[in-house]
Amino acid sequence: MIPQDTIVALATPSGAGAIAVIRVSGKDAIAICSPLFRSVSGKELDKQKSHTIHLGHIVDGERVLDEVLISIFKGNNSYTGEPTIEISCHGSIYIQQEIIQLLLRKGCRMADAGEFTLRAFLNGKLDLSQAEAVADLIASDSEASHQIAMQQMRGGFSNEIKMLRDELLNFASLIELELDFAEEDVEFADRTQFKELINRITKVLKRLIDSFAVGNVIKNGIPVAIVGEPNVGKSTLLNALLNEERAIVSDIAGTTRDTIEDEINIGGIGFRFIDTAGIRDTKDIVESIGIQKTFEKIEQAQVVIYLVDSSQLTANSLQVLKTEIGKIKNKYPQKPLIIVANKTDKLQQDQIDHLTLEIENIHLLSAKTGLGVEELQNKLLEFVNTGALRNNETIVTNTRHYDALLKALEEIQKVQYGLDTGLSGDLMAIDIRQALYHFGEITGEISSDDLLGNIFANFCIGK
Amino acid sequence: MIPQDTIVALATPSGAGAIAVIRVSGKDAIAICSPLFRSVSGKELDKQKSHTIHLGHIVDGERVLDEVLISIFKGNNSYTGEPTIEISCHGSIYIQQEIIQLLLRKGCRMADAGEFTLRAFLNGKLDLSQAEAVADLIASDSEASHQIAMQQMRGGFSNEIKMLRDELLNFASLIELELDFAEEDVEFADRTQFKELINRITKVLKRLIDSFAVGNVIKNGIPVAIVGEPNVGKSTLLNALLNEERAIVSDIAGTTRDTIEDEINIGGIGFRFIDTAGIRDTKDIVESIGIQKTFEKIEQAQVVIYLVDSSQLTANSLQVLKTEIGKIKNKYPQKPLIIVANKTDKLQQDQIDHLTLEIENIHLLSAKTGLGVEELQNKLLEFVNTGALRNNETIVTNTRHYDALLKALEEIQKVQYGLDTGLSGDLMAIDIRQALYHFGEITGEISSDDLLGNIFANFCIGK
Repeated sequence: MIPQDTIVALATPSGAGAIAVIRVSGKDAIAICSPLFRSVSGKELDKQKSHTIHLGHIVDGERVLDEVLISIFKGNNSYTGEPTIEISCHGSIYIQQEIIQLLLRKGCRMADAGEFTLRAFLNGKLDLSQAEAVADLIASDSEASHQIAMQQMRGGFSNEIKMLRDELLNFASLIELELDFAEEDVEFADRTQFKELINRITKVLKRLIDSFAVGNVIKNGIPVAIVGEPNVGKSTLLNALLNEERAIVSDIAGTTRDTIEDEINIGGIGFRFIDTAGIRDTKDIVESIGIQKTFEKIEQAQVVIYLVDSSQLTANSLQVLKTEIGKIKNKYPQKPLIIVANKTDKLQQDQIDHLTLEIENIHLLSAKTGLGVEELQNKLLEFVNTGALRNNETIVTNTRHYDALLKALEEIQKVQYGLDTGLSGDLMAIDIRQALYHFGEITGEISSDDLLGNIFANFCIGK
Repeated sequence: MIPQDTIVALATPSGAGAIAVIRVSGKDAIAICSPLFRSVSGKELDKQKSHTIHLGHIVDGERVLDEVLISIFKGNNSYTGEPTIEISCHGSIYIQQEIIQLLLRKGCRMADAGEFTLRAFLNGKLDLSQAEAVADLIASDSEASHQIAMQQMRGGFSNEIKMLRDELLNFASLIELELDFAEEDVEFADRTQFKELINRITKVLKRLIDSFAVGNVIKNGIPVAIVGEPNVGKSTLLNALLNEERAIVSDIAGTTRDTIEDEINIGGIGFRFIDTAGIRDTKDIVESIGIQKTFEKIEQAQVVIYLVDSSQLTANSLQVLKTEIGKIKNKYPQKPLIIVANKTDKLQQDQIDHLTLEIENIHLLSAKTGLGVEELQNKLLEFVNTGALRNNETIVTNTRHYDALLKALEEIQKVQYGLDTGLSGDLMAIDIRQALYHFGEITGEISSDDLLGNIFANFCIGK
């Protein structure tokens, strides 16, 4: 299972910069790099201590490719758990390519995406959920997603799962032992203690499964659809929420034909705002496609903002608005809907009073002056339960873990039922083994090449 | 002059990657980083040896920002010649920003462009021409430009200049000493040896100045204008030379309105091909602007390729072509002009014979089939004298050095004249000092804040 070849890849972002780092890992990493490195001190690379840095030149025969710093990691004292060399070279693309090509000629193989982390997993440096957290950490773009990935990478989640699995494994062994003495009708596994454990596991699993709702939101953001008649200021609102000019703002009705997606962080949570074409009957084909998309976007959104231009509201259009709101509420009864009256800066006080009376819970706002924008952001934040985040609890963000936890819970509930109904040990043992299997899937005690392939294919090259 | 503050910058290219390296340099670098680093081994950073690597976490109070590797360079044993810390962190943009912001809060200052290399210069780690070569090295994108930058960075050029300067300085001192004993009419400086030195210096300066022609070409590439009637296959030729689809290829006459520039490497030399709009009378305003540009581009180009569609040539258009060629030769008599007959795949042998008879040195080509493309590349290469490159001689690529060398030569020639005409020592001493000044400008013995500002402003941040 442990790979025998030596891999190489650029570990820093592609493109030119001050420096670049090329990573070489594998049992021959030092043997391959040593003859290509002419140390300034004259010392040979393979005679150096682990975790030391050496100045010198990368040479290809007589040709000097670059002046570099080489970091050396010996034995299993590296990220991958294999001998590793990191070459810190000048950041020109030409030099990066020349050095990598030289290493390929000298016996290295180009690393696949995530292969360094895969090796770390195969060499026991990380369990599978920690390895997955590495990719999450690199992808994290908010404090919340960063915090969860860090916690998972440092083993918080794995430890919780492993401890439960060990306890369960212990009981499984005792119950399986009873089967060997079936004729003697002994109970090695204390049923009261076992019930207590199953209760505890059920509680933890339920908490972890519940945490996925917020975990998923933190990882992927909350999609919010902004809909309404054309020219009510959707793009302007989007810009006010984004604080920059992303959407095309124009006074020509129906300007926004493409849906524009963008994400902002409110209180550490990502909200993806989806601006859509206006809802209205139209003969314009392009516009019609936009309206079709509007309904699709409402479908995809977790929260809907219905935006109206309060300065354009007549008695008649107010009735139309009420009908429209009714339609959406009817079609999507479960979907949180915020009715936002924009351009309230243009209204008189009596007009505002009338509006708040006519439409329940209407949110007054002026995207132009910024009035009510922050309150709207706070309202959006209420849709996220950030309690778990604040309390530093383990939060599940990974669909694969979520699925495994659901399956584990199902098996644990079967065990529970077995205990309650006095099911025979041999049948219960099967359910326990199944639960153990799903626990093991998370941390990687149970894994297949296919699964590993899928997980690490999502990594970047060089990690 | 030596700076007292501690600077920080991202040293790897911006964007997300597997890892990123943040560089901290200055007398307080280790003192600032030490309390922010919690080593896995429990050892304190400031107690570690130079050139060692340490695994641990960057912490901001209780908050863990990332698991990192820290490289430590103590005393003046670093690139900058100051205590330096390099933090190798996970490559998310969020993490990069959080760590840099933490360091800024703890007393670091954001580094200016090239400031690490400026410090290396100020701390005597590099002379000025070596420092400039660092930027050239990072910008190098061909074997030739890389080779020259490497040679210059390793001091090849500086050493040559410094040795001449030292010898000249020695004579200057002797001649100035003579002035103190003016009444005794002694000659400390052996005039024969001095003449020999001035001869030698003149030779070296002339060689270096001459090398700039090829140096400039290697650094900046040779601009080649491709001109001709519309629809003769300019874009197709460009693509054949580039081996990819860069220009818009179309059968509609006059498609190429913008000039498209692209560079390819032929034999390690960069050629910048400039495709221009066709030369013809037209009432189309956009097209007219294109033609105006054509003449501008010929002006800028070092070589001109005149491309004709051989399959469309009539007796009449052949005469027009001859007139056109005459016009260009007349207007730009010094500019090398290659007449290329494209689409020769469509010709009969007798047509080819006729063409080669009518137009001297016409180059037969089919951009479509690739016939004659390589020969054209070889023809282009003949315009570059690559002898110096092959012989590994010092090549000047930097305009600043070229200017200083020209000025130094001017002063040396005055000295030469002084020697020949028996000029008095005090006057000759002035010319020698001037020559020494210009030598010193190259290596940075003579520099001003303005000059340094100009040079390092062209560097990237983090170098």
